Amino acid sequence: MRGKLITLEGGEGVGKSTNLSYLEQLLRAAGHELVVTREPGGTPLAEQIRALLLQRSEEPLDELAELLLVFAARAQHLQQIIRPALARGCWVLCDRFTDATYAYQAGGRQLDRNHIALLEQLVHGDLQPDLTILLDAPVSVGAARVARRGERDRFEREADAFFERVRATYLQRAAAAPARFRVIDAAQPLDAVQQQLRTAVMAWLEACA
Amino acid sequence: MRGKLITLEGGEGVGKSTNLSYLEQLLRAAGHELVVTREPGGTPLAEQIRALLLQRSEEPLDELAELLLVFAARAQHLQQIIRPALARGCWVLCDRFTDATYAYQAGGRQLDRNHIALLEQLVHGDLQPDLTILLDAPVSVGAARVARRGERDRFEREADAFFERVRATYLQRAAAAPARFRVIDAAQPLDAVQQQLRTAVMAWLEACA
Repeated sequence: MRGKLITLEGGEGVGKSTNLSYLEQLLRAAGHELVVTREPGGTPLAEQIRALLLQRSEEPLDELAELLLVFAARAQHLQQIIRPALARGCWVLCDRFTDATYAYQAGGRQLDRNHIALLEQLVHGDLQPDLTILLDAPVSVGAARVARRGERDRFEREADAFFERVRATYLQRAAAAPARFRVIDAAQPLDAVQQQLRTAVMAWLEACA
Repeated sequence: MRGKLITLEGGEGVGKSTNLSYLEQLLRAAGHELVVTREPGGTPLAEQIRALLLQRSEEPLDELAELLLVFAARAQHLQQIIRPALARGCWVLCDRFTDATYAYQAGGRQLDRNHIALLEQLVHGDLQPDLTILLDAPVSVGAARVARRGERDRFEREADAFFERVRATYLQRAAAAPARFRVIDAAQPLDAVQQQLRTAVMAWLEACA
């Protein structure tokens, strides 16, 4: 039986790293063999593409080139890591996936979402996440956390309006696919976030058992 | 008036570098401001993508990831170099373009050509070369020349059958678009190749004047 693909999504500073570890613990405790990975990246070649995407360069990266790089990394990651793991029954927990592309490239950068849908179809038309956890917080909350982290990458340097569009796109996608998404209020104190996360994941595990 | 886009195509060892310089001389002699560039590459970021494509790595590069990287580099090159040059009336001479993607990825790798057509449409549906010079030679001739060059990149290490498919795809595309293509017999001695090239280019220049 194919394993489950679980993705974690959210804008900047919503606590994705901390909650990724917590989510990993919850899934391991449920007894599933688990691969934890991330996008863009997840393989040495895909991480090289990630470095191109995040680097600050004098030459502006064309928005369509950016989108194609994201899907190139995704194709490589799917072929090397995600598909083989799922095929052998292993579960995969992935820090960001195609919802992030809609949020950042269609929402943030305002690229035509049909371009993304076309590339999604080409690269993984046959495969969608089984569960997507969206950590949601007001942009001001996330921005304050990012500001404390020091130097920012090419995405983290975007303006607030960009991140408002990212957030709105994530929320729209969650509203359009409630069976797949669980939206967690990440503006709460960490204890409360994790309690909400645990409740959501436990209920989902029970339903899919 | 928009400048002309001229592309030079051909498999391995057909004398592309030597004849690129000759072609450049012919076009400059005709009095056109000219940008000479190449694919994949042509800008610092696109050259970084080129390096990913040509590097020999332990991790096999997924064929779809390869295709998406090629078009990412192309989108960047078009946006930074080719489109601005053409828009200001400058001519562009490009060492390889999308015909090479059909030849190597659809022909050589046997990827679905509809995938390439879809990405071509996305990235430059509005822009096609005005003239494409195809240097054609039997695979054995090209292979003998490449063998003398020393260490081979990830493409140059493919088998003969791969290059037979590359050649056949180039020739099919030339036959399907005779108004755009000029096929030069690159197995001839260099003098004869360049005479054929000069005759073809001069006639084309006259026709488009």
